[in-house]
Amino acid sequence: MPAAQPDSGLLSPVRVGTAVEAAVGDTAWLQALLDAEAALVRAQVRCGTVPAAAAEAITAAARAELFDVRELALAARSTANPVVGLVAALTRAVAKEAPEAAEYVHRGSTSQDIFDTGAMLVASRALRPVLADLRATAGSLARLAATHRDTAMAGRTLTLHAVPTTFGLKAAGWRQLVLDAIARLERVAEHGLPVSLGGAAGTLAGYLQYAAGAPSGTGDDAPDDALDTLVDAFAAETGLARPVLPWHALRTPITDLGAALAHTAGALGKMAADVQVMSRTEIGEVAEPGGTGRGASSAMPHKRNPVLATLIRSAAVQVPALSSVLTHCMAAEDERSAGQWHAEWQPLRECLRITGGAAHAAAELAAGLTVHPGRMRDNLDATAGQIVSERVSAYLAPRLGKVPAKELLTAAAQQARLTGRPLGAVLAGLPELVGVLGREELAELLDPERYTGVAGPLVDRALRE
Amino acid sequence: MPAAQPDSGLLSPVRVGTAVEAAVGDTAWLQALLDAEAALVRAQVRCGTVPAAAAEAITAAARAELFDVRELALAARSTANPVVGLVAALTRAVAKEAPEAAEYVHRGSTSQDIFDTGAMLVASRALRPVLADLRATAGSLARLAATHRDTAMAGRTLTLHAVPTTFGLKAAGWRQLVLDAIARLERVAEHGLPVSLGGAAGTLAGYLQYAAGAPSGTGDDAPDDALDTLVDAFAAETGLARPVLPWHALRTPITDLGAALAHTAGALGKMAADVQVMSRTEIGEVAEPGGTGRGASSAMPHKRNPVLATLIRSAAVQVPALSSVLTHCMAAEDERSAGQWHAEWQPLRECLRITGGAAHAAAELAAGLTVHPGRMRDNLDATAGQIVSERVSAYLAPRLGKVPAKELLTAAAQQARLTGRPLGAVLAGLPELVGVLGREELAELLDPERYTGVAGPLVDRALRE
Amino acid sequence: MPAAQPDSGLLSPVRVGTAVEAAVGDTAWLQALLDAEAALVRAQVRCGTVPAAAAEAITAAARAELFDVRELALAARSTANPVVGLVAALTRAVAKEAPEAAEYVHRGSTSQDIFDTGAMLVASRALRPVLADLRATAGSLARLAATHRDTAMAGRTLTLHAVPTTFGLKAAGWRQLVLDAIARLERVAEHGLPVSLGGAAGTLAGYLQYAAGAPSGTGDDAPDDALDTLVDAFAAETGLARPVLPWHALRTPITDLGAALAHTAGALGKMAADVQVMSRTEIGEVAEPGGTGRGASSAMPHKRNPVLATLIRSAAVQVPALSSVLTHCMAAEDERSAGQWHAEWQPLRECLRITGGAAHAAAELAAGLTVHPGRMRDNLDATAGQIVSERVSAYLAPRLGKVPAKELLTAAAQQARLTGRPLGAVLAGLPELVGVLGREELAELLDPERYTGVAGPLVDRALRE
Amino acid sequence: MPAAQPDSGLLSPVRVGTAVEAAVGDTAWLQALLDAEAALVRAQVRCGTVPAAAAEAITAAARAELFDVRELALAARSTANPVVGLVAALTRAVAKEAPEAAEYVHRGSTSQDIFDTGAMLVASRALRPVLADLRATAGSLARLAATHRDTAMAGRTLTLHAVPTTFGLKAAGWRQLVLDAIARLERVAEHGLPVSLGGAAGTLAGYLQYAAGAPSGTGDDAPDDALDTLVDAFAAETGLARPVLPWHALRTPITDLGAALAHTAGALGKMAADVQVMSRTEIGEVAEPGGTGRGASSAMPHKRNPVLATLIRSAAVQVPALSSVLTHCMAAEDERSAGQWHAEWQPLRECLRITGGAAHAAAELAAGLTVHPGRMRDNLDATAGQIVSERVSAYLAPRLGKVPAKELLTAAAQQARLTGRPLGAVLAGLPELVGVLGREELAELLDPERYTGVAGPLVDRALRE
Repeated sequence: MPAAQPDSGLLSPVRVGTAVEAAVGDTAWLQALLDAEAALVRAQVRCGTVPAAAAEAITAAARAELFDVRELALAARSTANPVVGLVAALTRAVAKEAPEAAEYVHRGSTSQDIFDTGAMLVASRALRPVLADLRATAGSLARLAATHRDTAMAGRTLTLHAVPTTFGLKAAGWRQLVLDAIARLERVAEHGLPVSLGGAAGTLAGYLQYAAGAPSGTGDDAPDDALDTLVDAFAAETGLARPVLPWHALRTPITDLGAALAHTAGALGKMAADVQVMSRTEIGEVAEPGGTGRGASSAMPHKRNPVLATLIRSAAVQVPALSSVLTHCMAAEDERSAGQWHAEWQPLRECLRITGGAAHAAAELAAGLTVHPGRMRDNLDATAGQIVSERVSAYLAPRLGKVPAKELLTAAAQQARLTGRPLGAVLAGLPELVGVLGREELAELLDPERYTGVAGPLVDRALRE
Repeated sequence: MPAAQPDSGLLSPVRVGTAVEAAVGDTAWLQALLDAEAALVRAQVRCGTVPAAAAEAITAAARAELFDVRELALAARSTANPVVGLVAALTRAVAKEAPEAAEYVHRGSTSQDIFDTGAMLVASRALRPVLADLRATAGSLARLAATHRDTAMAGRTLTLHAVPTTFGLKAAGWRQLVLDAIARLERVAEHGLPVSLGGAAGTLAGYLQYAAGAPSGTGDDAPDDALDTLVDAFAAETGLARPVLPWHALRTPITDLGAALAHTAGALGKMAADVQVMSRTEIGEVAEPGGTGRGASSAMPHKRNPVLATLIRSAAVQVPALSSVLTHCMAAEDERSAGQWHAEWQPLRECLRITGGAAHAAAELAAGLTVHPGRMRDNLDATAGQIVSERVSAYLAPRLGKVPAKELLTAAAQQARLTGRPLGAVLAGLPELVGVLGREELAELLDPERYTGVAGPLVDRALRE
Repeated sequence: MPAAQPDSGLLSPVRVGTAVEAAVGDTAWLQALLDAEAALVRAQVRCGTVPAAAAEAITAAARAELFDVRELALAARSTANPVVGLVAALTRAVAKEAPEAAEYVHRGSTSQDIFDTGAMLVASRALRPVLADLRATAGSLARLAATHRDTAMAGRTLTLHAVPTTFGLKAAGWRQLVLDAIARLERVAEHGLPVSLGGAAGTLAGYLQYAAGAPSGTGDDAPDDALDTLVDAFAAETGLARPVLPWHALRTPITDLGAALAHTAGALGKMAADVQVMSRTEIGEVAEPGGTGRGASSAMPHKRNPVLATLIRSAAVQVPALSSVLTHCMAAEDERSAGQWHAEWQPLRECLRITGGAAHAAAELAAGLTVHPGRMRDNLDATAGQIVSERVSAYLAPRLGKVPAKELLTAAAQQARLTGRPLGAVLAGLPELVGVLGREELAELLDPERYTGVAGPLVDRALRE
Repeated sequence: MPAAQPDSGLLSPVRVGTAVEAAVGDTAWLQALLDAEAALVRAQVRCGTVPAAAAEAITAAARAELFDVRELALAARSTANPVVGLVAALTRAVAKEAPEAAEYVHRGSTSQDIFDTGAMLVASRALRPVLADLRATAGSLARLAATHRDTAMAGRTLTLHAVPTTFGLKAAGWRQLVLDAIARLERVAEHGLPVSLGGAAGTLAGYLQYAAGAPSGTGDDAPDDALDTLVDAFAAETGLARPVLPWHALRTPITDLGAALAHTAGALGKMAADVQVMSRTEIGEVAEPGGTGRGASSAMPHKRNPVLATLIRSAAVQVPALSSVLTHCMAAEDERSAGQWHAEWQPLRECLRITGGAAHAAAELAAGLTVHPGRMRDNLDATAGQIVSERVSAYLAPRLGKVPAKELLTAAAQQARLTGRPLGAVLAGLPELVGVLGREELAELLDPERYTGVAGPLVDRALRE
């Protein structure tokens, strides 16, 4: 057997050292599985089918540090999931302290009930720091948007200067995406993380059989409300939601979670992509927050790489594919599947921790972003007026006709580009415009800062959200 | 130039001939783009910046059948989107009937405003038949679940018989996934499909400049509520939602739509996967609806292939990947991206029409599914009692201890498997059980139909949803 | 039944009007299916089991223009593939002209043999223009690399100026990727596209039974070389490769094709991403080839959008996901699968035509790219020396120690950045460097054009490939 | 800072405890990075630009156990890659023992040269056990194919019995896919894993500057063969291949590796999918190898789950998506990208170790698979003759015409299905067949074991590969 090779995050700087990483690691996952086992017994105590002392003993033993996570992982290869081995280990641990309580470990249950409930606990816990980071990001972006409500900069489309915009509007857009992400994650966190309680094939038969106990009191004589009582108790003990049906093979909670996380990664990826463009040496409109060693290169002394944006983009590229695995796994056969369920686990964890790591980086990035309005102003002037060609065209349209006006501007802009002259100078020399466009009007039309449309009111509206 | 090669659906039987196919095809898409152009002018009329006659003329000309879709497609290769060519063609068409109205085509607008608004119109129209098919599917499944509330069958996990369940619970589970899908699609259809109105770089500057008209009345003097007025009017004219901000580069509507469709495809894929398993020659518990030629093979006279389930699965395999492209495209740079936007179009259409085609197949499948309770009963008996080994183990646990009881049953089941004897016979011969398990109790415990847990109440609960 | 809605490419400008589009459209696909049917009969003639006249009649009837592709597509919904309907239609068409020949249509065959053979024919035909475009692209890039072997420009890493490079090396790198793509596609085209010949479940039993004819001559008495004879003949008639085994459920040919196409799309995407960066208004080092209307915006007269690069990137974003569907479908159950096979068709076609469309755009882009060495030189100077900080650090390392040298340069570069002074001026004022670094040495070290390493020899080496 | 949460494989049973897991874990990866640093110095010694003693000291210090992997991982968050921190740590470690040697650590190099070379070393080492497991799998499957060359079983298509096949042919098909996978991985292992040597932006300028040393001997005066000398030496020291160009931004090696691994996972997934179908309780034709606890359920004593196939399928679902991330990352901008490179690392590792884990499971599965020819025979008879309806149809075709023959069999099969009578009995009663089909001929035609086509010769041919 090769030596254990635990991953410490060497290949995943985007999440290393973050709270979400800790919340989804093997130890945290193991603890969540144990929490699910303990909550299940306590729920059975609430239903009166298990003695309270057993729940206490099991809860006391359900501490991750008492177990060897690597050993449990290795055992999982024989059964294709880690719960079978965990039940044996937990039973032994309980038996040491309270032999009679060991009888009540995992009673009537099945691996998937514990694993899925544990996964929902992990998700619930992991989403807290993710949401906190996203809220902090949104807050910082709100401040940036307000501060730069009227800071004009070049709007860029298909990589080229298009018409002016403001940095405030850009920041407000980033924030809007973050708010969208928060809304989607909150919806999942509040309503979308249910307990799993179905027993071997989703009928809860094992739970009822154990509850019935006596030979004559077989499961099918159980009162119909046994179902609701047990599910309610389990939900109460875990703080998770109540599903309509056992969901061993009905994977909406997993795909909802994956979809919300993929959206979040994409939303943050948008901000990161923009920060990278604006950080380019030739553009220089923003710079990432610095700090000792932050952004250093192993070769080039002068560099201060946009590492936070880089980390975020590394997440935005991975999460859509990882999340697609989760959707893919919905089409699973039978009451519990032979592979699709097992394929969900690692991608789900990666979606949580990579996205969460990106959120952490985004919070830092948004809080510390340096903005250079001077460079924005310089860049606005880089085309010497061409950036407002749309405006001149629109101004002339009622006077010359829309199509002729656009053709005239197209030709003028081409001439300006080829000769290197300012667009204003080219236009001032056009005989077609004599008497149509005065010198002062032209100067006004060509001022990029006066062609930002309703960027300001849009910022105001967005910040009211 | 090679001859046009329009696709008629030869490689996509899952969607061919369906209403959703018609709703998302090139002609429908073109019509939606034209509808967006026309609605934009009417919105400008509402705002008082365009004469009503122009809107009438443009609306009259905005009919897909007047345009050559292939020509527009070919033109799109020069500009990377079909709107530039469409504007030219529409302007010409309008000019023929009402030259002065031609001035008002696409006034102040940009390609992406029209394309994205058109895409939202397409989605809105396409979701109607999809939702109708899903509701029909859910209705049929409700009937199946109610009819077979107590039809016992083998529950299967990891491909093997696990414990009994009922076909009613299985059908209720399929329906639950369909209801989940409906809820997600309705959420998108009702709130998630906004108009796109931003102008060249999301500031609406072009719209305002045209609206201002007079040289002294430049765009930046426009009253702040010009924004709301125009957006409201456009939303009213199209029936679409109002976005908080222009969303050229904030792609939540696209990813929400993709996520809901991927969930839907997965949800239907679950049902299809189960139908395929249950249709297997050796299992034979259900059969797809027949009909002349339905399910025929080109080689084998005896076959009646489960083609509807096959079509549905073909969708469930494709849509997660297609949807991941949409999420991937969120991380787009600038005010409008150079590639990611363009990469969305075809995958979005495929998500709509493949999923919609699967929904149509599902409606047909659910309405006509033949159920064979006799085969279900036969299969329940296939293991001669082993399918309820959990129950016997649970029954014995309080008497022998949980672990010894499970070990005893494991050994007995293995013996039954190796010798081919019924589990009951093996158990009856075990000295450990003398005095613990009477003959009548054993018979009762071994009856699979009496070990379906709360399958019935679960069906009842689910049908109340 | 809603009206047919053929796609003319409105949403796929990347491939519209290209040769590869024509080669993979529904009509071309239909023709390939017919070619497969005809080749099969001719192969059977070669084996002496079918009269030659039948093959002639069937070959004569196997012309796509004689069939209604939409009708065949619609029929496919009943059988989940288009071959069942095609066989019926072809049989009817043959029977009209040569009734006795109709007996020999699809004799002993199965849908998948015809469909997969047809798909390989389509791929074989579609790869020709794709490879031609890639070779043209490589040729143009070789010229660019040779011309600009020594044209210095800023090397950029993590979006920032790093150290100098040459445009020749960049172009050589793009070409290398294109050569890699060509090699991978040629490998597939030459050896990886086999006929499919298995009969109903991969045993060729149907072919043999028909060949045997007489009741006593049943298939299992067939000489063992019947297999090789028929497969060889089919391969000869189609020009395709000979598989080791029938591959209905062994999908290596499909995934190899998908992998090579995904590589190609990614390779071209690299060039497109670079062209877009270098085209940015602030950078301006290259420009796409122009032409009437090429790159026009619907709003902004001055724009000349990098549309070819945009089209290429739209492909590079889609193809990896589409190709992943193909790999996903490998894990198919049974002798022929119920959904995975069907899920391959449209993604395979899209991989071919989107990648092929990108190759066509790349050929045009590479042939017409405008290069601005002046802007490259200007940009090299943008950091006033910081771009060669590595060199100065390396030069000083043997004199000051590697770590102190790097720290000194890091501090100097930071000071230069904050004060806006040239790095040379900062360094010249440092007391630590008195006597270590003379004025002339410094000037030489700071010349970016003298720090391009072996860029030139690398270009030479690459061009020898 | 939350406590470290190393992953021990709890959520990845498919790879836990395997040799490939050990070969790609953080410690192994760290060792490979150190090996790359040490090999680089030794290569520089070979070129005569570094003293031999330095290489000895650095090689001696380049042992993973001397470093804290978690600390390095944490440091990577500041620089977006782990090499910057590693260089600092290695320099310190070397300096402790041999201060003058510390000068030569990472001399002229850049993070990506070290990381990518390390990744190729990891891949090279990881592929060895993967290939060994695949070869063992192929060997076992060859034995199964030979043993069961003539073991007839039901061929299944679209989940239904189609025509007979043999288990030997099925096993030969599985093996063929495994051979395909081996060929693709070997091609990568032997030619596709190159050293990375480019320096800061791919020009090797830093290496040359350090090599030149003296102020007058600047890099651009270096002899042109300096390039080849250094690359050759580095390749020799690492045992890796020589690239044509530095490949920081030319990612063919990564996508080739990903494509070969995705193919492998899919190939194994095919076998697993078949084993799962054949293991189904109702089918029972094969069983996975057992062993204490193998396949145990936490709830059901009688179960022996097909866990190896389940593990393999869990890989086959994940790897296509993970591999698509790698292809996606090809389209990276600049000389080194800001995110796409970083997004490759973890998916590449997962592709290696999940696929490798699946290969290990496959070797075990193939070696120990239990085959039940009796159940195969029973299942062949399950349709009472319908499974050979194609044969009867083919037999009758020359006598009745192909279409009438198929229609007659279709009707007969339907009657057999509805009445539960054997197909032979139905056919024997058909007036159309009087005088056409004698009793003995019918009996012979209906024997499934006599309708396996060339399954045997196909097995022979495949085993000769």
